Amino acid sequence: MRALATNPAARGLSDDAAVLQFGGEALVLTHDVLAEGVHVLPEQDPADIAWKLVAVNLSDLAAKGAEPLGVLLGHTLGAGDERFLAGLGEVLAEYGVPLLGGDTIAAQGPRSWGCTAIGRATHRPVPSRSGARVGDHIFVTGTLGKALLGFEALRDRNGADHTAYSRPRPRLAEGQALAVEATAMMDISDGLLLDGWRMGEASGVTLALDAQAIPVAEPNRRRECLSWGDDYELLFTFPPDRQPPVPAHRIGAVVAKGGSAISLDGEFLTSKHSLGYVHG
Amino acid sequence: MRALATNPAARGLSDDAAVLQFGGEALVLTHDVLAEGVHVLPEQDPADIAWKLVAVNLSDLAAKGAEPLGVLLGHTLGAGDERFLAGLGEVLAEYGVPLLGGDTIAAQGPRSWGCTAIGRATHRPVPSRSGARVGDHIFVTGTLGKALLGFEALRDRNGADHTAYSRPRPRLAEGQALAVEATAMMDISDGLLLDGWRMGEASGVTLALDAQAIPVAEPNRRRECLSWGDDYELLFTFPPDRQPPVPAHRIGAVVAKGGSAISLDGEFLTSKHSLGYVHG
Repeated sequence: MRALATNPAARGLSDDAAVLQFGGEALVLTHDVLAEGVHVLPEQDPADIAWKLVAVNLSDLAAKGAEPLGVLLGHTLGAGDERFLAGLGEVLAEYGVPLLGGDTIAAQGPRSWGCTAIGRATHRPVPSRSGARVGDHIFVTGTLGKALLGFEALRDRNGADHTAYSRPRPRLAEGQALAVEATAMMDISDGLLLDGWRMGEASGVTLALDAQAIPVAEPNRRRECLSWGDDYELLFTFPPDRQPPVPAHRIGAVVAKGGSAISLDGEFLTSKHSLGYVHG
Repeated sequence: MRALATNPAARGLSDDAAVLQFGGEALVLTHDVLAEGVHVLPEQDPADIAWKLVAVNLSDLAAKGAEPLGVLLGHTLGAGDERFLAGLGEVLAEYGVPLLGGDTIAAQGPRSWGCTAIGRATHRPVPSRSGARVGDHIFVTGTLGKALLGFEALRDRNGADHTAYSRPRPRLAEGQALAVEATAMMDISDGLLLDGWRMGEASGVTLALDAQAIPVAEPNRRRECLSWGDDYELLFTFPPDRQPPVPAHRIGAVVAKGGSAISLDGEFLTSKHSLGYVHG
């Protein structure tokens, strides 16, 4: 990652969605890749891979309060294509999103799938991860760690429900409702602590979190739930005198930047690599 | 490919760029993937891979008469990333195109790279491959087969110039000038004969080509030059009473649909697979 991080040409390759002013509107664009052996378990139903591929990109749009206009796909052909297409059809129908185009290739080795999603911002300024202000309250939608349990269910074939991992649901409606007043917003793809650290860094503040206030799927494994990704919930900050218009848990407050961009119960978390899932 | 071609969910996965009406403008979107071992020679400079990845997507925009607004990249990390980024910087600077975003992954096995390009149509209706009318004249920009010779130079390391293969130049300016009056237009990525067949099919006509009128880089290997891809020249049809505003060779005329959507010196070419490069 060092080569990419230090090269000016690569500065655009962040996890954040891009915002493009166009025709009097703001377009939101995002591109994510899933790879076999990295993001996808060997035993996963290709229909679920297709669902997740589209859903994680729609989640990036959700974090910008954008309504989806369509997706483009880069698909590596291979076994299970019929299932892949079935899942693709399901996720596109579920969210009313057209497939605008894409490319198919036949390649050897582990496969990868790319998806570009394009959306229209429903509110401007478009929320970003850099707008958190000292005094803001910090919120999260849903419950964290459900994807962790779903992943284990799938990996261990223990019969438990793995939907939260295999078919994440982007918070599109919530994102659009929150975009009006949220001071900062992002989706949690790599774990609350790492993504929260990113928001704090981008905003030049510290996100001070209260561990017990954070809703987790498995209280005995709270720290794991906070550093495991794939939940695709929304993390956002809100002015202290305002209430979010959608169900969300208040999990802390934004404070002046301290020893790290994130703290948990007053302890600054400084080692980035222990916070969550780091790609590459 | 059969699974994809017959599944409704996959109908959008064609080679053609997508056109999206938005904010009073027409957006053009395209996504292409290059894969190691398929589109890329092992000995290729990663800087050239980056150039080509962006250039082939810009070529899709050129065929729509679109001006580029930006690109998003899906990059598989690996050896030569510094060179890849150098080439990426070069092609983006050459065409004044911003990198809007993207994703990087670390995966095993042969790598692939995806690129999404987004552009603004400079003329509406936006040219497509389906607008060729009986009586139109058929034109092509540039000389075909240069990429073939460049490919061989690179493969055989014979010291000849391989720029035409490794650093194709999208015909952006030509595409914008032609979009005003061209009845149909596409870029030649898979060979004149196959892409011409596609245009004929989409338009419900036959493209009747005159072999000797087609400019080729190696006249002794004319047929090869016509069925080899990667030249990224523009193929377009024009009303018979109008002259194209950019340099181009007239190579035939559109006639009522006969035994195939393409003919060469009066012979209908009916076997799709002998016409050019078929992906997947």
